[in-house]
Amino acid sequence: MSANEKNTNTHQANAQWGGRFAGGPAAIMQDINASIGFDRALWRQDIAGSLAHAAMLAKTGIITAGDEAQIRKGLNEIAAEIEAGTFDFSTALEDIHMNIEARLSERIGEAGKRLHTARSRNDQVATDFRLWVRDAIDGLDTQVAALLETLCARALEHAATPMPGFTHLQTAQPVTFGHHLMAYVEMLGRDRGRLSDARRRLNESPLGSAALAGTSFPIDREMTAHALGFDRPTANSLDSVSDRDFALEYLSALSIMAMHLSRLAEEIVIWCSAPFSFIRLSDAFTTGSSIMPQKRNPDAAELIRAKGGRITGALVGLLTVMKGLPLAYAKDMQEDKEPVFAATDAAALSLAAMDGMVRDLSVNEEQMRACAGSGFSTATDLADWLVRVLKLPFRTAHHVTGRLVGKAEARGVDLSQLTLEEMQAEEAGITADIFDVLTVEASLASRTSLGGTAPDNVRAQARRWQKALAAEKGAHKA
Amino acid sequence: MSANEKNTNTHQANAQWGGRFAGGPAAIMQDINASIGFDRALWRQDIAGSLAHAAMLAKTGIITAGDEAQIRKGLNEIAAEIEAGTFDFSTALEDIHMNIEARLSERIGEAGKRLHTARSRNDQVATDFRLWVRDAIDGLDTQVAALLETLCARALEHAATPMPGFTHLQTAQPVTFGHHLMAYVEMLGRDRGRLSDARRRLNESPLGSAALAGTSFPIDREMTAHALGFDRPTANSLDSVSDRDFALEYLSALSIMAMHLSRLAEEIVIWCSAPFSFIRLSDAFTTGSSIMPQKRNPDAAELIRAKGGRITGALVGLLTVMKGLPLAYAKDMQEDKEPVFAATDAAALSLAAMDGMVRDLSVNEEQMRACAGSGFSTATDLADWLVRVLKLPFRTAHHVTGRLVGKAEARGVDLSQLTLEEMQAEEAGITADIFDVLTVEASLASRTSLGGTAPDNVRAQARRWQKALAAEKGAHKA
Amino acid sequence: MSANEKNTNTHQANAQWGGRFAGGPAAIMQDINASIGFDRALWRQDIAGSLAHAAMLAKTGIITAGDEAQIRKGLNEIAAEIEAGTFDFSTALEDIHMNIEARLSERIGEAGKRLHTARSRNDQVATDFRLWVRDAIDGLDTQVAALLETLCARALEHAATPMPGFTHLQTAQPVTFGHHLMAYVEMLGRDRGRLSDARRRLNESPLGSAALAGTSFPIDREMTAHALGFDRPTANSLDSVSDRDFALEYLSALSIMAMHLSRLAEEIVIWCSAPFSFIRLSDAFTTGSSIMPQKRNPDAAELIRAKGGRITGALVGLLTVMKGLPLAYAKDMQEDKEPVFAATDAAALSLAAMDGMVRDLSVNEEQMRACAGSGFSTATDLADWLVRVLKLPFRTAHHVTGRLVGKAEARGVDLSQLTLEEMQAEEAGITADIFDVLTVEASLASRTSLGGTAPDNVRAQARRWQKALAAEKGAHKA
Amino acid sequence: MSANEKNTNTHQANAQWGGRFAGGPAAIMQDINASIGFDRALWRQDIAGSLAHAAMLAKTGIITAGDEAQIRKGLNEIAAEIEAGTFDFSTALEDIHMNIEARLSERIGEAGKRLHTARSRNDQVATDFRLWVRDAIDGLDTQVAALLETLCARALEHAATPMPGFTHLQTAQPVTFGHHLMAYVEMLGRDRGRLSDARRRLNESPLGSAALAGTSFPIDREMTAHALGFDRPTANSLDSVSDRDFALEYLSALSIMAMHLSRLAEEIVIWCSAPFSFIRLSDAFTTGSSIMPQKRNPDAAELIRAKGGRITGALVGLLTVMKGLPLAYAKDMQEDKEPVFAATDAAALSLAAMDGMVRDLSVNEEQMRACAGSGFSTATDLADWLVRVLKLPFRTAHHVTGRLVGKAEARGVDLSQLTLEEMQAEEAGITADIFDVLTVEASLASRTSLGGTAPDNVRAQARRWQKALAAEKGAHKA
Repeated sequence: MSANEKNTNTHQANAQWGGRFAGGPAAIMQDINASIGFDRALWRQDIAGSLAHAAMLAKTGIITAGDEAQIRKGLNEIAAEIEAGTFDFSTALEDIHMNIEARLSERIGEAGKRLHTARSRNDQVATDFRLWVRDAIDGLDTQVAALLETLCARALEHAATPMPGFTHLQTAQPVTFGHHLMAYVEMLGRDRGRLSDARRRLNESPLGSAALAGTSFPIDREMTAHALGFDRPTANSLDSVSDRDFALEYLSALSIMAMHLSRLAEEIVIWCSAPFSFIRLSDAFTTGSSIMPQKRNPDAAELIRAKGGRITGALVGLLTVMKGLPLAYAKDMQEDKEPVFAATDAAALSLAAMDGMVRDLSVNEEQMRACAGSGFSTATDLADWLVRVLKLPFRTAHHVTGRLVGKAEARGVDLSQLTLEEMQAEEAGITADIFDVLTVEASLASRTSLGGTAPDNVRAQARRWQKALAAEKGAHKA
Repeated sequence: MSANEKNTNTHQANAQWGGRFAGGPAAIMQDINASIGFDRALWRQDIAGSLAHAAMLAKTGIITAGDEAQIRKGLNEIAAEIEAGTFDFSTALEDIHMNIEARLSERIGEAGKRLHTARSRNDQVATDFRLWVRDAIDGLDTQVAALLETLCARALEHAATPMPGFTHLQTAQPVTFGHHLMAYVEMLGRDRGRLSDARRRLNESPLGSAALAGTSFPIDREMTAHALGFDRPTANSLDSVSDRDFALEYLSALSIMAMHLSRLAEEIVIWCSAPFSFIRLSDAFTTGSSIMPQKRNPDAAELIRAKGGRITGALVGLLTVMKGLPLAYAKDMQEDKEPVFAATDAAALSLAAMDGMVRDLSVNEEQMRACAGSGFSTATDLADWLVRVLKLPFRTAHHVTGRLVGKAEARGVDLSQLTLEEMQAEEAGITADIFDVLTVEASLASRTSLGGTAPDNVRAQARRWQKALAAEKGAHKA
Repeated sequence: MSANEKNTNTHQANAQWGGRFAGGPAAIMQDINASIGFDRALWRQDIAGSLAHAAMLAKTGIITAGDEAQIRKGLNEIAAEIEAGTFDFSTALEDIHMNIEARLSERIGEAGKRLHTARSRNDQVATDFRLWVRDAIDGLDTQVAALLETLCARALEHAATPMPGFTHLQTAQPVTFGHHLMAYVEMLGRDRGRLSDARRRLNESPLGSAALAGTSFPIDREMTAHALGFDRPTANSLDSVSDRDFALEYLSALSIMAMHLSRLAEEIVIWCSAPFSFIRLSDAFTTGSSIMPQKRNPDAAELIRAKGGRITGALVGLLTVMKGLPLAYAKDMQEDKEPVFAATDAAALSLAAMDGMVRDLSVNEEQMRACAGSGFSTATDLADWLVRVLKLPFRTAHHVTGRLVGKAEARGVDLSQLTLEEMQAEEAGITADIFDVLTVEASLASRTSLGGTAPDNVRAQARRWQKALAAEKGAHKA
Repeated sequence: MSANEKNTNTHQANAQWGGRFAGGPAAIMQDINASIGFDRALWRQDIAGSLAHAAMLAKTGIITAGDEAQIRKGLNEIAAEIEAGTFDFSTALEDIHMNIEARLSERIGEAGKRLHTARSRNDQVATDFRLWVRDAIDGLDTQVAALLETLCARALEHAATPMPGFTHLQTAQPVTFGHHLMAYVEMLGRDRGRLSDARRRLNESPLGSAALAGTSFPIDREMTAHALGFDRPTANSLDSVSDRDFALEYLSALSIMAMHLSRLAEEIVIWCSAPFSFIRLSDAFTTGSSIMPQKRNPDAAELIRAKGGRITGALVGLLTVMKGLPLAYAKDMQEDKEPVFAATDAAALSLAAMDGMVRDLSVNEEQMRACAGSGFSTATDLADWLVRVLKLPFRTAHHVTGRLVGKAEARGVDLSQLTLEEMQAEEAGITADIFDVLTVEASLASRTSLGGTAPDNVRAQARRWQKALAAEKGAHKA
């Protein structure tokens, strides 16, 4: 490194590096080891877990009812302190568990020191983190459901709006904009399925597994599991404290969901481009430029597209962290939280912004229809007519159509602008009926196969989803 | 690049690079575009799909029964050719679909050209690949079930064999080797759940979605779905040809499973090391050295540990491929197969090798027990006794125990070798009963909490699994 | 799994799974352990390394000159056999090293058994693989240089061809197509720099490090290093056999390069879309559809875009494999080759196809110019004029321009179509000179800052690169 | 989702999810779009860039000297405010650039509005972020150099301390602990090389590239480049604002470095385990347990091992974000900062903690020597003796040695405990000299090949490094 590389106005930053670790081993160790900077996000779950644990200890006679009452009161007061922002988090106490337990003993004395009986931080953090991920799943699931409703509503509105269906981003066949939106409904529906499966699989209580081997106290793990909304206790104590499957499965589900959102985001970016001009976003979802006054940038779509990458990064990070770890708990596993928190935040923001954009976007129907009708988009309809009416083998019909497309292209016209004679020159059997299948509307209307783009299909699909979503809401209320 | 860098015996390799792409655009395009080099693995699925499709076309009157009979005969003959290794795969025909269809037309003429009616390569490859992944799931599931049986059997055998339970790879508390193996049973059980959920979610038939928009032919998608063992047809044609969730969810499940196997593999490597010497692998699962005649390398374990990384790489690769792709089909999606094939192979090999190693390994019980009993492994038992018998608060008991450990460490003895007087100096209430909880056996036997390491617990857990696995097998046979 | 799920024509596939591992431990171990299936790609490097090693053993008197002559003859004959395709690779011999050594002993007897003196497979494979990666770097570097030449030539051709410069895929300011292509020249130039740095760093010879500790034989590592074109021997034998940095750094460089190519590929896909129609690819680089006769799909571009994901997957795979491996060699490291081979192949194909497409593409200048001039693309020029001529602060000029854009948008005209009066209503100082800066040509010509898009700048940049590339070629020939 | 799943004490958390996005589009957009939450870390760099830009604008006559003086004063005051913690960061102003510029205009009025002349946020953020990464590289490089010094010092101290050299974690041959540490010196030395190459490649100034096309103002990019310590301006304005190679190359280098640290961390964890007991960490670098009073957990090593995974995740995240982005700037690129910041933090902590641990660790020489001498670790020495003295071909010597190992193993003794007769039974030529090569010391001393483990080699290697590090320091001071 040459001396003049240091000749910059940013040299102050360099100075900081040296200082940071000047505190010696103790400072370094605290810096790398303490997790309170991020795991304070688990405070609700930690208190919930402790309340359930204390109630169980009292019920089974491991502590007295009086101790339990004191603990309950103390924990509820601590919850209030944290909620109010008056709790003093201490890095020296390492993590959220020790912060809360220390404060409890400070407030209630002896009884507080009995709380940690028959548990360990290993099962405690496993419990807290499962509860947190479960809450996150529930929150995201609600958001996905809302986005599904929005997509269905917009799809119904545009069930018959023609747009060019692309493959390879080349005009393929006409579809409807509603049909296109409903494709995302299917994807996000599967995402909910994955989240729900992950939730079901994680919903077992590790509490009571203690450090790794279980405990000799006569605890009742069913009781704490039930109190915390878990379906049952976990079956093996070693596994319980070593397992982070629930976080990985959750991140996998988020990665796939984020990939779906990145695809719609990419489409929104492309559709907003001047040459496409399929849709327009309002000021609410575009930003200006610091230098170009005319810009309307679809920033939210771009950020959603990017956040998929970040979530994949979180998944890879945790998979790599867990790779090759001997049982049982290892401190490596503390690196599970930041990726999960960051990915959850990215997913929640992406869903909210996508919901907002889908509501917000206005469709340029004229432009979409014009594109849908150009580029020989009904060539397949012509080929299918040859098969259906003239009984040509499909491969033969495909070749005939190819020649007609070539002829039209050479003349600079669309297929429907070829004369009947020009068509018959390629295939004598063609009749004037052919022109009926070359319109966008005819093409759309004909795609009545299950899942096809015919507007009635689209409407039916959207209504089926709306009904299911409504039923689900009803069930929640009931 | 200096001239002498070329002065190597490997310069021939460089020469090849130039030549490879000398063929011009056509050669380059064929090289990058053709997939027959790997997608020939789909041949069974492709023929199965075509048979189902043809039967449906005949049933719905789209083709004649005669044509269908010819097609069926032709496809079965092609299947026989491929099976026999006499089929001539052609790169010029790009992929498995065109190879088979071209051969069909070659064999049966006109009728062959009717097979592609009302479908497209887009729904065809989606169908083939789903069928392949479904088969792979079934194959791997069978392997996981076999490994579960092996683990349960070894766990029962060692339900009471003491081993040191580690956290942070530091001696924590005694557990049993059976309990340790059963932790992997839980993990792999969840892996089966994930595979099963992925299978259920993928088990919808995209066939009949055609290129992207459905078709105007009066096809019966329920019929082909049923014939191919799918639960139902997919609901949206655009989604059907754009979706690779099934591959991603499958790779996610494999990544998590491979991570589990990497953990056990790491443990096997550590246990086989000279200082640990917990287990020994026979010659069947070790290899020698080209230079050190004494070596017994646990290569299979190391390779399993590594394959987890490779599978994660496959998942990341496909997630990145799919990120930001506009609908519907894009050629990018052709890059789905190699990662899935490679990951499947890695997973199948890993499961087979792990099953072999778990069967093969012999346990050095003496060494494990010696380690289990040293390192103050029963300190927790002492603390728990103070709580249970003397009613000390847990935190206080923890501190008392800490001081006793310090005293023992200073004297170079284990806890059970402290005298009663030495103990009472720290806590006057301690009685001679304390020595009963300081043995490895007492510690193990006391951990009777649900999921704890008490030998009876371990046996019960293993038998529960064996029963479930047997029931499942019975159901399969029935 | 329900019985009817088995009711498919693909059930044969399932049957295979069971069979594969029926061979028992030996078959499993061979399947997972043998690397000859892929590491045979190292045969040239392995023979080159052995020739160098044998020459050194003779020179230092460790073997006789006669033995060396026999070994040399034998290895050259084996090379000829492999080249001719008559060499019989054996899985039982595990890897390329043992295959060649065994064949050597078969051909020349005793002398062959002396070849492995003072080396180990650990340093042998490290040497072979470094040589292979070095060759791959040289091959790819040549391809990148060729692509740079192609890009420069097309950039010169289109140094003044206007195209809309996008940010956020929104029309921002006019640029030239040549300028756009030259951006990729800069990126790929950095890629060559990274490949070259990786090559320099890898170019040390591990040969002679033996298994891990060096050797007691009086070997001359400088001699083998020199013979193999390495700059020097490695400095630490443990590191030499444990290190796979060279593969990881190479994959990192490829990942970044592939990302660059994915960006240009994405642009090609977008530019080929009907609404953009900026460029057209000939039949050589497009493919048709199995169902839509009119399609011209930019498959090569899509595959290049996807291969970036695959290469990232390879990098992640190997990083994860290497994570947390204790020194020295571990079998995990055998999983280094397949990702490197696959990524190299993907990169080489991507470069060749990109070079072909850039040569092939024809530019729709009319369409690009029309887009470049619309969308208020010269709004910044207007703002800059206000600053330069009227001395408005930039922020103020930005606001004035914003209002003028709003006015033009409301009237549905472009900025240059506003009357002078309309402009003066916003800012009284505006004169008729303003219309001179609102044309695309004026905008382009004015961007003369270093690196700006002014056509003369673009030509100078392209010629500078051409000269450097030509000089480099001259140096290679000399 | 069943009703009772909601029956938990954590239901408050769910309630929050709904509320967060209740603010409507504006709130959502601000939440996803604003980067001030993290990019405030760039404040020093942003002010440095603005100071350089303003000085250049004045020098070239684009703004007046008076304006520049005001701007300079204003920016310096803002720097003081931020340093003092009194600056009021506003989310509504989106990012650090707008926050500072707005505050500047607030403080100095008109002149402040002239600062953004001839630049854009696109080149501004590219400049800021390059400066930040450059500072980070310098900071980390200093830390790596410090760690190298520590490793060299400990290596010198233990240049002759025998330890078992492992391959596959199986005892292979004796090495010295110093030699082992020096392997990491080589790795980290390469890491510095990669960081340095990345620094050199990034050290070009994008400032003056403006939004994407350059500018019509007569700016002097050489001047700002020089002022900011860059080697030169970038050559293409489109590339300048689209490029994040510098971040990716930096993350690649960190990923490889973190992988190295993860390997040493893994070894520390293994060496601290009871069965190995090769080293001991003091209380400063171990932590206790909340339940097991005897534990000494090597948490710092585990966290370092894990952080490698996190850094790989950051790299993957950004590679995926950048994949397939059309030029020029896209908002996706805002997702570059958090991964880079997080990875930098992880790397800095890991280096500091590793340096601390390497200083702290005390070596159990007796245990390492005992292990180094067992497990037939000198079998290779025996084989080499047979080759050197008896002129056996190596393969033959290898087989003879294998039989002797088998014989010793069967008798439960080590090689040196076989009698001469027993040896001669396998190979008649063996003499009593053989016993001289079977000791650990003889083995170590014999490995004098370049890079081999002979203690003198290790000392020389360590001193060479120390000299180079000292020379470098001298150069920095001069």
